[in-house]
Order: sequence, then C-alpha cells, then structure tokens
Amino acid sequence: MKRYEEIGKIPYVGPNSKEPFGFRHYDPDEVIHGKKMREHLKFALSWWHTMNYCGTDMFGGDTGDKSFGEKEAMALYRRKADVAFELMEKLSIDYYCFHDVDVAPQGKDLAESLRNLDEMGSYLLKKQEETGKRLLWATANNFGDRRFMAGAATSPEKDAFCLAAAKVKSAIDWTIRLGGTGYVFWGGREGYDTLLNTDVALELKNLGNFLRMARDYGRKAGFRGDFYIEPKPKEPTKHQYDFDAATCCNFLRKEGLLEDFRLNIEANHATLAGHTFQHELRIARVNGVFGSIDANQGDPLLGWDTDQFPTSVPECALAMLEVLLEGGFTNGGLNFDAKTRRQSNTMEDLLLSYIAGMDAFALGLRIAFRILEDGRLGQFLEERYRSYQEGLGKKILEGKATLEECADYALSHDDFLIPSGRQEYLESVLNDIMYRG
Amino acid sequence: MKRYEEIGKIPYVGPNSKEPFGFRHYDPDEVIHGKKMREHLKFALSWWHTMNYCGTDMFGGDTGDKSFGEKEAMALYRRKADVAFELMEKLSIDYYCFHDVDVAPQGKDLAESLRNLDEMGSYLLKKQEETGKRLLWATANNFGDRRFMAGAATSPEKDAFCLAAAKVKSAIDWTIRLGGTGYVFWGGREGYDTLLNTDVALELKNLGNFLRMARDYGRKAGFRGDFYIEPKPKEPTKHQYDFDAATCCNFLRKEGLLEDFRLNIEANHATLAGHTFQHELRIARVNGVFGSIDANQGDPLLGWDTDQFPTSVPECALAMLEVLLEGGFTNGGLNFDAKTRRQSNTMEDLLLSYIAGMDAFALGLRIAFRILEDGRLGQFLEERYRSYQEGLGKKILEGKATLEECADYALSHDDFLIPSGRQEYLESVLNDIMYRG
Amino acid sequence: MKRYEEIGKIPYVGPNSKEPFGFRHYDPDEVIHGKKMREHLKFALSWWHTMNYCGTDMFGGDTGDKSFGEKEAMALYRRKADVAFELMEKLSIDYYCFHDVDVAPQGKDLAESLRNLDEMGSYLLKKQEETGKRLLWATANNFGDRRFMAGAATSPEKDAFCLAAAKVKSAIDWTIRLGGTGYVFWGGREGYDTLLNTDVALELKNLGNFLRMARDYGRKAGFRGDFYIEPKPKEPTKHQYDFDAATCCNFLRKEGLLEDFRLNIEANHATLAGHTFQHELRIARVNGVFGSIDANQGDPLLGWDTDQFPTSVPECALAMLEVLLEGGFTNGGLNFDAKTRRQSNTMEDLLLSYIAGMDAFALGLRIAFRILEDGRLGQFLEERYRSYQEGLGKKILEGKATLEECADYALSHDDFLIPSGRQEYLESVLNDIMYRG
Amino acid sequence: MKRYEEIGKIPYVGPNSKEPFGFRHYDPDEVIHGKKMREHLKFALSWWHTMNYCGTDMFGGDTGDKSFGEKEAMALYRRKADVAFELMEKLSIDYYCFHDVDVAPQGKDLAESLRNLDEMGSYLLKKQEETGKRLLWATANNFGDRRFMAGAATSPEKDAFCLAAAKVKSAIDWTIRLGGTGYVFWGGREGYDTLLNTDVALELKNLGNFLRMARDYGRKAGFRGDFYIEPKPKEPTKHQYDFDAATCCNFLRKEGLLEDFRLNIEANHATLAGHTFQHELRIARVNGVFGSIDANQGDPLLGWDTDQFPTSVPECALAMLEVLLEGGFTNGGLNFDAKTRRQSNTMEDLLLSYIAGMDAFALGLRIAFRILEDGRLGQFLEERYRSYQEGLGKKILEGKATLEECADYALSHDDFLIPSGRQEYLESVLNDIMYRG
Repeated sequence: MKRYEEIGKIPYVGPNSKEPFGFRHYDPDEVIHGKKMREHLKFALSWWHTMNYCGTDMFGGDTGDKSFGEKEAMALYRRKADVAFELMEKLSIDYYCFHDVDVAPQGKDLAESLRNLDEMGSYLLKKQEETGKRLLWATANNFGDRRFMAGAATSPEKDAFCLAAAKVKSAIDWTIRLGGTGYVFWGGREGYDTLLNTDVALELKNLGNFLRMARDYGRKAGFRGDFYIEPKPKEPTKHQYDFDAATCCNFLRKEGLLEDFRLNIEANHATLAGHTFQHELRIARVNGVFGSIDANQGDPLLGWDTDQFPTSVPECALAMLEVLLEGGFTNGGLNFDAKTRRQSNTMEDLLLSYIAGMDAFALGLRIAFRILEDGRLGQFLEERYRSYQEGLGKKILEGKATLEECADYALSHDDFLIPSGRQEYLESVLNDIMYRG
Repeated sequence: MKRYEEIGKIPYVGPNSKEPFGFRHYDPDEVIHGKKMREHLKFALSWWHTMNYCGTDMFGGDTGDKSFGEKEAMALYRRKADVAFELMEKLSIDYYCFHDVDVAPQGKDLAESLRNLDEMGSYLLKKQEETGKRLLWATANNFGDRRFMAGAATSPEKDAFCLAAAKVKSAIDWTIRLGGTGYVFWGGREGYDTLLNTDVALELKNLGNFLRMARDYGRKAGFRGDFYIEPKPKEPTKHQYDFDAATCCNFLRKEGLLEDFRLNIEANHATLAGHTFQHELRIARVNGVFGSIDANQGDPLLGWDTDQFPTSVPECALAMLEVLLEGGFTNGGLNFDAKTRRQSNTMEDLLLSYIAGMDAFALGLRIAFRILEDGRLGQFLEERYRSYQEGLGKKILEGKATLEECADYALSHDDFLIPSGRQEYLESVLNDIMYRG
Repeated sequence: MKRYEEIGKIPYVGPNSKEPFGFRHYDPDEVIHGKKMREHLKFALSWWHTMNYCGTDMFGGDTGDKSFGEKEAMALYRRKADVAFELMEKLSIDYYCFHDVDVAPQGKDLAESLRNLDEMGSYLLKKQEETGKRLLWATANNFGDRRFMAGAATSPEKDAFCLAAAKVKSAIDWTIRLGGTGYVFWGGREGYDTLLNTDVALELKNLGNFLRMARDYGRKAGFRGDFYIEPKPKEPTKHQYDFDAATCCNFLRKEGLLEDFRLNIEANHATLAGHTFQHELRIARVNGVFGSIDANQGDPLLGWDTDQFPTSVPECALAMLEVLLEGGFTNGGLNFDAKTRRQSNTMEDLLLSYIAGMDAFALGLRIAFRILEDGRLGQFLEERYRSYQEGLGKKILEGKATLEECADYALSHDDFLIPSGRQEYLESVLNDIMYRG
Repeated sequence: MKRYEEIGKIPYVGPNSKEPFGFRHYDPDEVIHGKKMREHLKFALSWWHTMNYCGTDMFGGDTGDKSFGEKEAMALYRRKADVAFELMEKLSIDYYCFHDVDVAPQGKDLAESLRNLDEMGSYLLKKQEETGKRLLWATANNFGDRRFMAGAATSPEKDAFCLAAAKVKSAIDWTIRLGGTGYVFWGGREGYDTLLNTDVALELKNLGNFLRMARDYGRKAGFRGDFYIEPKPKEPTKHQYDFDAATCCNFLRKEGLLEDFRLNIEANHATLAGHTFQHELRIARVNGVFGSIDANQGDPLLGWDTDQFPTSVPECALAMLEVLLEGGFTNGGLNFDAKTRRQSNTMEDLLLSYIAGMDAFALGLRIAFRILEDGRLGQFLEERYRSYQEGLGKKILEGKATLEECADYALSHDDFLIPSGRQEYLESVLNDIMYRG
C-alpha cells in the first residue's frame, strides 16, 4: 500500500477497481440529475477529528501523531491548516467545519485566545482564496474547558455564560468573514448529570436567552445563513437538553426561534436517542427544520458516540433519499463528524476512511435516485393513503370534519379491512434496488 | 397466608408489622401537611390489568382466571364491575380508570358495542353512587382490534379513523356522565413499523385533526376536565409518535393544543424512552403540561413494557417530590397501570401487589415531605444559581442582556471557578432522608 | 399483484426482474463451488410462525386467519400440514421444523395430546414420503402452558419437570421416526423473573439432569443427530439461563454435555444479548459447538424478539461466511424462525416474506464466496498475525513459552509499533464486494 | 462545609446526624455477627481513580488537580502515596489496590519503568509497615499505552505480548512483597473492534497461554492468593473477551484454569452486560469462582462505564446478601472502582464520595443481616422447592432418574398447579426490611 506522501489527488476508479486510494462511487464532477455529485453531496471535512484527534479514549492515550513535526503553537496550527486544505484537495472535498479551538491555540487568557483566532482566521481566509474551498459552518467549543463543566449557556454561574457568549460572538464574526452558510450550537454540556443539583426550568430559559442573543447579534452583523442546534441525547452529560429532533423542535417553538434555527442531524446521535438516522431526518423535515448533516455512524450495540466513518450503504441511501425528497441541501451539507478508529492511526487511514465514507454516501446518492426512478416505493405510498384524497377522507385531512360526522359514518361502515402493510416486500424491493447481484 | 375470600378491608398496620394484608405506610385518612393521604395520592385502579389480564405473554397463555364463574358476556362484565368496586373498597382506593372495551363486551358490530357500553356505563354509575368511588379518567381502546392494525387516527384508511372517532365520542360521553376529570388518548398504534410504508407528515396531520375534533366535541358536550396524551416511545409499534414528554409537547404546540391537553406520564414509558420517571415529570412541568400519572415500573435491563407494580421507593419518592413541587394533583391522580407478574396468578397476589405499590408511593410521599422539610437539597439549588439573582446575571435570566455586553464582561472576568456540583454528597443526603438506619 | 391461489412454484427470475413472486438470488439447483444452493443453504420452514401465528401481539389480537375454513381440530391440523408442504413445494424449501404443539392439537390430558401427536406424526411421515421433504429438527413446546409458568426442567415443582420429560420423550421419538437430524431444547421459561424467589444453583443442576436424561434416552432410542440448546438472553423471562453462546458453552462444559450438544444460533437472540449474529456464530465455532441457525433478524433499536424475516444482506453475508469457514452445515440448516409483521397479514405476504428472506441469504451466500475468492480480507488476517508463525511467537502460541523468557525478551524489545488495524479500509473492501455499483 | 485540611478521621455519627463528614452506617469496629464491620466489608481504596483521575472525559479536560504542588515525577508519586495512606486513615479503609502505572511514573523505557516501580514498591512497603494498611490486590495496566492498542495477551504482535508479560511479572513480584492476597487481570483491550481484522480463536488461545504462564510464574514465586479475571462486556473495545461472569467461566473451564482463578465482579460491568450486580455475583457463586468485588454503580440509562460511587442501597444490600451467603470474603474485598463525577472536583468531594459509598455498603450489610434474621425470604425459597426433597423429585435432583420414568409419572400426574411466584409480595417484604418508615 502506498504511503501518504506518495498519494496525490484521489481519482475515480469505478466499482470494479481494487485500488485502495481511489473512489468507486464518488465521481465529483459527474452530473446526476442536473447537478454534479459534489454539489449534491456537499462533503465537508471536520477539523477536530481530522486534524486534532489522535486516538485517545477513556482507557488509553494517543496512538497517532498530528504534530507534523511542529513544536510552536501558532506554527503548528498553520501547519494543520495547510494539511487540512491539502486533504480537501486530495479528496475533492469542497467544504470544512471547525470549532474555534480546533483552528487556533488557546492563549493565556480569553483576549489572547480571541487574538489567536483572529490571526488564524485570516490565515484560513487566505487558504480559501488560494484553493476555492469554503467554510460550511463554524462553532465555538463551549464544553471542553473546565469552566464549562456545568454548562455554558446553562451554567449555574453567569461568568460561564458570558465566557461562552464571548466565544460565540467571535466565532460568528469569523463565520461571516469566511463566508460560512451555517453556525452550529452543540450543547455538549447543556444538560444535567443529576436532577438533584439542577434547576431545569432556569437552565432552559437561559438556553433560550443565549440563542436569542446570538441570533440577534449574528443577524445584526450580517449573517444570512442558518443557525443550527444539534440533537444529541446524552454524553458527556447524563441528559442533554437537545435530546433528539422532536425535543429540539419543542424548544425552538417554545422559545420562538423556529424562524432562524434549523437542525444539524448526526447519524450516531440519532441511534443513541433510540431512532434511526432516517427517522431524525424525517422528523426535521416534517417540522420544517431540516438543515445540515453530521455524517458518521454508531454501533447499534454500543451505548456511546463512536463517531465512526459511515460505511453502511443502506443507511446512507435512506438518508440521501430524505435529502432528495427535501429538494437537496441549501445552506447545509454533509460534514464528516467521524474519527478514524484508535487502531487506524496513520495518515493513510485518514485517507482510506474518508474514501470509505464518501463512497458510501456517493453510492447512497446513486441508490436514492434509483429508488425514485424505480417508483415502486413511492407508488405504494400513494396507493396506501388514497382514501384521504376525496370525500370524507379529504375533509378529515383538511381538518374540516367533526367527530360527530365521523362517528355517524362509522356506524354504517364498521366492517372494513386494512390492506397489508407489505413491509417484507418493500424491504425486498429496496434490496433489489441496492444490490445488483 | 389468608385466602382472598377471608380478607376484608386492608388495615393500616404500620411499618413494623409482618401482616401481609396490611399497609405499612398508606394510612388513607392520616392528614399530612393539611391533606389526607388518599387526597395527596389519589390512587386509581386500572380496569384492564386488574379485571382482565390473566398472565398471557407472547410465549404462553393465561395462568390465571378472572371469569369468576360467569359464562354469559354481560353477566361477566357486571360481575367484573362488582369485584372491581369490592377491590377498591378493600384497598381504600377512591378512583378507577378504564378503556371502553374493558368494562363492556364487544358486540357483533359497532352499534351493539356502543349499546353494551351504554348499559355497562349505567351500571358503573349506580356502583359509583352506592360506594362514592369515582372515575379518574376513561379512554377508548383504539389499538387492539385488527381494524386498527395500521393505526386509528393515523390509519392510512379513513374508515379506521372514523371507527376510532365513534368510539372516542362514546367514551367521552361516558367520561362526562361518570364525572371523570380526565380523558386519555394513548396512541398505541399511532406510529410506524417501517418508514418504507409510512407518510409521517400526513399521519401527524391527521393525529392533530383527530384530537382537535375530539376536543371540540368534548368541550361542546360539557367536559371540563383535562385531555391527556401519553408519552410512549415504541411497542407495539417500532416508533410511536408520542415518543416522550418533549415530543408530545412539540406536537401539542405545533397543533395548537396546549390549552386543553396535558400529559399522562407513565414510569415504564419513561425508561423505555431512555429517561428517568422524574425526568419526564420535570419536563412536563417545565412545559406546563403536567397532568396525571400511570404508576408502575419497568425493568431497566429489559426492553419492553413490563408494567410492574411499583416497588422502587427511591423512584416513587422523587416522583412524589415533583408532584408536591407542582402543588399536588388537580384533575389527575396515580393510576396503577400495572399488572401482576405472570407467575403471580392469584387473587391474593392482586391484593398483595396493590398493597406493595400503594405502600411504595405512600412511603414515597412521606419521604418527599421529609426532603422538603429537611431543606438541604432545596438550599443547595438556591445557592448554586445565586449569580442570576442580581446584576448582569439577573439581566441575562430576564432576557435583557446582549451578546456584546456579555462578551465584554467576559474579557475581564475569564478567570473564575465553578463550584463543585456535589452529586455524591447530594445522593448521600437523599439516602439519609430515605433510610433511617 | 397475484393472489395466493394463482401462484405456483416460485421461479428464479434473476436480479433484474421486478416480478414479486420470483427469486432474484436463490436458484435452488444452481451449483456453486461444487454444491447446489439448496444444499449449501438447507432452508427450513418454521411451523409455528408459518402455520399458526396470526399477527397477535401484546396489544392486539389476530389480524390474519390460518384456519383455512376448518373447524374440527384434527382436520385443521391435517389441513395445516397440507398447506405447509404446499408452501415448501412452492418455495423450493427442503426442510421443516416444529414444536409438538405446532403440528397436533392439545388433548384433554397428556395421554390424548401424545396420541394426537402420534396420529399427526404418521400424517407428516406420509407427506414426507410423498414429497421428499424432510424434518430438520423437532422440539417440544415446554413454555406455553400455564403448568410451565415457572419453568420446565427448572420448575420448582417436579410435576412440571416430569410433564416436560414426557413431551420431550415423545418429540424425540418422532424426530427419529421422521428422520430429523437435530433435536432442539429452547428454554423459554428456563430462567427467572426475580432472584428473590429463585434457587439458581438447584435449577441449573436440574437443567443439566434433564438434558442428560434426554440425551441418554435419545441415544438409546437410536438418535444419531445433534442435540441443540439455543442461546437467548431474556424474554419471556427476565433472565434466561441460555443467555448467549458463551454462557451455553459454560453450561455444557460444566455438565459434561459437550459431546452430544451443539448450539442453534438465532440472529435476533444474538442482538438481544448485545452481540452481532456473526459474533455468536464465531463463538460457537471457536468452542466447537456450531450446529444450526434460526434465521431471522431483530431491530437493533427494539428490546424484544421481533423475529423479522431476514433482509439485511450484510448480516446474512457475514453469517454465511462463518458457515463456509466452518465447512458448511452438517446436521443443521437455516430455519426461518421468522414471522410476517402484524400488518403483513395475508398468504401473499407469507410467500413474499420467505422470498425476501431466502433471497437475502442466497445473496449472502454468493457474497460470502466472493469474499473468499477476493482474498483481501483473508490475506490481511494472515499478515496481521505473522509474528506468531516462528521463533518466540510460535513458542507462545504453542503454549511452550514462560513468563520469564517473554519478560526478558521485552527488556530489549520494548520499542515497537503495532501496524494499523485498518478497520475502515476493510469495511470498504467488504462494501466493494457486496455492492457492484 | 469544612475544607479538606480541616477534616480529621471521619467519625461514626449515626443515622440521624447531618454532619457531612461523618459515617451514618459504617462503624468500623462495631461487631456484627461476630466480626467487625471493617472485616465484613474489607473496603479498599482504588489508586487510579482516587489519586490520578482529575475529571477528564471524552469531551473535556481536567477539572481538578491532583499534583499536590509537586513537579518532579518521583516526588509526585511519593506525595500521592502519602495522600493515599492519609485518605485511608481518615476513612478507616484498611486496603488498597493499584495498577503498576498508578503508583510509579513511566520511565524512558521498560527497564526504567520497572526500576521506578521497584523504588515506589519499597516506599509503599514502608508506608504499610508504618500504618498497618495492606494491599488487597495489584494489577498491570496493559491497556493504556499505544503499544497495547490491539491488545496485550491477545495482540496480533508478539512484542506486545512480551511487554505485557514483563509488566505482569513485575506486578506479581510486588503483589507478593506487599502481601497482596489477589492479582487481577483486567483485559481492557483483550477483545476486538471488528471481526474483519480479528482471529478470535488464536487470540483466545494466547489469552489462555498468557494466564497459564503468569499463574505458573506466580505460584513458583510463592504467591498463595487468588488470580482474578474481571468480566466486562465492552468499552474500550466493541467486544471484550471477558464479557460477563458466565463467559469468563467458560474460558476458565476451557483453558483448565478454574483451580487458580476467580472473578473480580464489578457492578457497573454487570449492568453494561445486561445483568444485575446480584446476578453476576450469583453466577460466580454457582460456578465456584466468587472472588472479589469492584464496588461502584452505573447508570441504567447510560451505555458506558460511569464508575459512579455506589449509593443505591437496595443494590448494595442484595450484593452483600450474596457475600454473606457465600460465607464472606476470603482473599477478596470491596474495592471502590469509582471516580468522583467530573463536577465533583475537590478533595472534599473525594471524602464525601467515599463516605457515601461506604455508608451505602455498610447499610447494605446491615440490611443483608436483617434479611437473614427476618427469615421470610429464605423460608419462601425452601417451601418453593420442597418437591425435590423426597421421592421422585429427590431422584431427579440427584441425577438418578430416567426420562422414561419421569414420562411415566407424568401420564398419571398431568393435572397440577404451580403455586404463585409471589414476586410483588417478596419485593414488598424486602422493602419492609430496608425502609423502617
């Protein structure tokens, strides 16, 4: 197998090649249904996992090294930026996403940290101009520092709230300057470890206050993109306030934030909440808040956020089907919030993992289009709900019927059959479309 | 051990007695903090589990017998009613809850079924008048019949929607006549088994339509109590639309039903959704929709609705703490949605199980008051959030601060410590209050 | 879509056909690697789900009807047998499996039940002779009756133990007469609901006694096939003694039963125990007790035994890979312990579901062979463990090294690197083999 | 609340005191049933969590500081030892447990690391002599270092196997010198992340080889205590070979290690495997391998090892009941494998957490004795299995009956009833004993 240094731009090699450093399904400039694959998929590199994560887990230290031989802090972060853009280039990825602390070193105090971010922000801007790569979204890491141990916007201590505000303000500024079309709030510590020490009502109120303040600031500063909150049920907290898509929607409705906020749906967070990835996308769509995707996968038998590179083609296909039914991405995209396994500790693994994930989604996109073309699934749905297309059914669906008239109708129509739901058949149709022998 | 026939009214025997057929903690007429225990707790008998369930599970048939020697349908249901009121009397339970099909036999068609319900409704009314017992809430079973196999309000077939409407109309009528203060919608089949055959948007729309129609009918007919929906994440469906309290709140907000609807929170449903019982009660409270409780418990290691009689005193104590913080029950109460284990197949077990559950909640109530009197937990909370009581903190909490001013403040206040959350200490305080050696 | 009556033998139509009643991947007489597909796969029809289950779940009654117009008990069971053999014929399935109570009606007492079984056994024998179909394995249902509510071999009451013995004896007799190559013990009630009322040591001792008695009887009566126990962690019990493959192996070793007993591995039971299907097959193989397979699938997000028809091709492929690595089935086979969904309530669904499941396994078989032919996965493994092929590594693997010599070696060899585990790459290789674009 | 420095030896203050730094239930020298509480409970301090863990989790860095102002490595570790013994003194804890890397700093190579351990081992020996405190068990950390990323005894690379051997040899030496009565193997990396890159058979063989080599060395060197393996199902690996107690027993039987090895049962590992803590203790007992306990608790709603201090009194009571039924600890004890919550980041929390956990187990011990004295639970069990005390039942239990004679008996004894299992009643009896009002 070739070494990282020997590997150039990853070519499209087609489904029958055995070349490890080639795409089987992702052909970036191939036009499918009027749009290039890169535009359908809008892949983004996640800075934290890609440039900073080195294999540490709760039971062991780093297995890899991403210092690239650099020792001095700013030099290291510039070097990381160089490598990140090099990776995007090699992988034909057009976008990236970051937390403030991913791209710039922490200073001795807040002021210095913000200055570092400013300096690195300018560096990123220059790299963008050189390469044409773009920021998909940015965010502030308001969960790692000990001062956020009890939350940021939901901290019992107002100083933490303010520190978070300062970091968000700066991150929004840079989102705007870098042309990002999204700004994410991931509430990793916005939740509780025990109800015994938590005033849930006050904390949720402050979470609303915080998001409104940030929204007002952003809009005033000229941000036209989407604000996102990101459902996750737990971990690191016992309970995270943004539990799942429906919970997020309830919060946004209650706080009057539906206008400006959408959801950033992550596959692994969906399964941790007891849902499928497709379910969370569907719920976001039904509530009109579908925004962006954190592409990864969990292990259905493990109870923590494994953030694996997505290789389950059926899952990717059904996710892309939802994206297509929604009309495709607007401000959002597919950010690989995925980390190489602890034992996949080389730069080659980084490439191989992105290739695996991108190909899974590219094949998923192709399959999603095939599902739509095939038509059998769509037709089944249409048939199934036909009784609501006219007469009393139509009146019911339009909310114009009364309980009394429905009850009356039932008295003379209580002997009916429900047609089969045909689940197994539909699953086999899906298999037929996915597997070509 | 005595036989059922030999057992009269269960007496309060106090915590040191070994009498199986006596209450250790539930002393119905004892006044605690200005109210009798029976009024604090508002216990209700669940008709379905108590009068009809005979031990069947997915792998085996009945182990018990609740036919009481009766063969003819109406006679059997009258006999069941007699025994139910006898049980309430023996157990000092003041309320009961039922589905339409629990109290009256199914007829050969809808019309006959409704007539049967009318006849049995009159019988229940007479029993109420004789005994002073009352209906807490009623509901219609719109999930057991094959015609509801694909849902009731969310069925793809309008005839099922109408059949459900007819049953609900009749059940609301009888709720009013029997003086019930609540009406429950449990959406056992309102969900999906596979997204491949489901139009989630249409189904949720119809669910909203259905609840509005029922609300309008009920209010017009003079119902002044609460309508409830009941969170449950899954089972029998793969996904139930009323997943958890937050999901229900989102739905009620979206459909404009917050005014008339509250939640009926069940302990076992909470744990199936990945939450604690206390969490679901808290979320209901924070959203202003706390209503009633289905008292039972699940097994944290099992993935289905075991509906066990509640015997976990810590869980009951924290639940009652939420009830007390809410100011107690108004229209709601504690309905034992619990069934005796398959191997607990005798009438004696029915009494012993109710005693176990009622005592657990009665002790829970006593402990909840002790927690409030002790004051340590409340004081800790007050201290913890003190920074929001004045100055910038107060402004933040009131939603009057801006991101800019918080960010400015942070620049000169970024070196602070968050006090310990003291989880283990608080848990030991709770233990001190619960266990007296 | 055609009606059941109009459908004859399901033909092989190939992967590109849209004919619902045709096989895309299962071509029974196609020879792959020297054996017909039907011999590689050894599909079996499960009598209970196929001929008796009508859609009932814990929240609702039957949705389908499998009485075929028959009213009298023996006539009904003969008719069911006719339909079962007709289904096998239509589906090109060569084997079937049953519990005693599946194929013959319960009598008024044990003696009559056994006589009924004898009569129906003769009928099955005749059907076998007519059709060439064969019994894969039989078992006795020692869990459904109320007398088994506390277990059969592990009942606290010896009369239940003896009743179970009588039923097993008869079922073994018929296994022999029908030429079955396996006899299964599924311990659905052999476990506990609460440790508070359970003597685990005594119950496990009796479970061992029971299996030894049955083994002795069977061998004496001339049974040459395999005895199987079947891992399942829970449901209906809180804890089932045969929790998973490793637990079963411990029991068999402890009780000295390794010689005669093997495991019947079920996919859904694996996932309920927190394992993958492949894992359980691997553990059985490593312990030398791989026997037979109950083919189905669970829902990774649901906590009960859903017994779905298997349609996950990746799961089937990895399972068939283990079967091939083991050298294929000997006495065992692939029994579809799967039931159509409650909403899939027609005879057409029964055919469509079997087709879906058989095709998933047939494609799985094809993919498993492609994995072996491709060679990349096998080669990676060989490379990875190369250090144990010679020198000290070999000595270690052969159990001939000492701690001291290893420790000595380490003092001068402590600066080494572990090669990458390449998980993502291997997953993408697997995808390449499974999905051909 | 007092500061750490102001707190001396924690006194027994009794159940009614509100003093945070006092024991309510643990009165070390109180004699209960002929033995001091400290001897019944044999509490041990866990060095790793207590002296080294500072609150880090996967989403954030340290929140506390345990450097005690020291900068130089050996000085720091001596200082940690001083504090550890001071904590044991304050808390009346008689034992401690450690991994090699907990008590001594890593050197630049293996040789230096071993020398550091030797130096610190001597220091610990001196501290033991001064204080009378003793080592309960030791272990080698063969999972944190990157060289163990693919396992230690089950690494695909023999150099890792040898490195592990060297560390175990040294840790066994010091176990002997410090008078430890146990030596633990926790296989944190002995498992797999994906079967795609794993030869399970070879790895399990090597695991057996490793344990035999270590056992042989230890016995030769004079170790008379117990070797332990420790069940854990997963985390950090996807699958850990020592999944649960039954899996460990199968392995020990297969490898012929039952003589020298016992189990170290951890509460949180039990729940991660889908079992109760009591279940795992019972399974260990039934298999004759009960050894020692890692005392902590998990959160039943979280899927990772939270290692919380145990405060669930019911769980502790049932665990201590198993210990008493086993005749108490011999070589084992109760090691607090528990860490203070991330937000409980002070030295005061460390004391408060140990107090909470020790009191929960002390109260658990008192309750366990009350259960035995009360007698109702034991009596119920005796009654329940009475049918195996004589006649055919006795013959069955002794393994002397045949299937034929049991079957014959059943033909004339098939009409029997199984007495109620009385689960709810037994749970209420347990409540009566635990809660005194």
